[in-house]
Amino acid sequence: MDTHEVVRLHINFKTLEEFENFREYGLQELSMKEDLEANIIENDSESPFYGVYFGKKLVGRMSLYKIDKKFDRYFEPPQDYYELWKLEVLPGYQGKGIGRSLVDYAKNFGLPIKTNARQRSDDYWKKLGFEALTYQSDRDRGENPYVWFPKGVSEQK
Amino acid sequence: MDTHEVVRLHINFKTLEEFENFREYGLQELSMKEDLEANIIENDSESPFYGVYFGKKLVGRMSLYKIDKKFDRYFEPPQDYYELWKLEVLPGYQGKGIGRSLVDYAKNFGLPIKTNARQRSDDYWKKLGFEALTYQSDRDRGENPYVWFPKGVSEQK
Repeated sequence: MDTHEVVRLHINFKTLEEFENFREYGLQELSMKEDLEANIIENDSESPFYGVYFGKKLVGRMSLYKIDKKFDRYFEPPQDYYELWKLEVLPGYQGKGIGRSLVDYAKNFGLPIKTNARQRSDDYWKKLGFEALTYQSDRDRGENPYVWFPKGVSEQK
Repeated sequence: MDTHEVVRLHINFKTLEEFENFREYGLQELSMKEDLEANIIENDSESPFYGVYFGKKLVGRMSLYKIDKKFDRYFEPPQDYYELWKLEVLPGYQGKGIGRSLVDYAKNFGLPIKTNARQRSDDYWKKLGFEALTYQSDRDRGENPYVWFPKGVSEQK
């Protein structure tokens, strides 16, 4: 499986146009577009998105938000961690290890990662080294939380 | 469009078997099953799930969690509200108003409702009377929050 170069995506009209190819496109993307149009954010501002290009085409992406440790209900000891959302590889580019490259990139920051495994993607996340948490209905409210633990980190009880 | 009878789902092995027909099946369902097998919860315990049956077949469902007002970052005035997850109607039963019946049932509790509109379902939620919130990256972290406001309730600024 190849390793693919991962880059942090800058917000500009080109990137936002590329985002329209992805299934998960909503208020987050629209709000970036509006902020750009209204000059509230600058062209080429940093974004929470990371991506993989094939030539000039964005073919995979994920969103990563750092969550402050005061909100951490997942990890022991409590600490800053990343929430990983919107991991998505375009049809035709799947099965090439692009998702894995993105997730490996996130792991390299060295903080724990939490995601919500949707639509029976549990096996995929396990293959990437993620583990299911013990379901807690108050905390998880229907989510399907999978996490990646760096060394020395475990599940918060 | 017909109105469909909505029932609160009780947790038993029959219900959990029906859940296997839905795309969103994960730790929440598995944890219910384990609790039932271990007699941690009783047969026919109440669940956060509501459903619609056609004959004896469960064809649509949603999960509703009441969130305490101290965690409310969406509504003005801050108040208890429902988080709606896992609204899903089986293929072959879509387009009959089953999703609408489920959501109408949730509205009848009279509290605001918040959901995360996935995979470009924005138009669907708008048709059901939901509105997009103003995206706030700290709060929404990649989510696509749509809400339903009962009378007298507005967006928290």
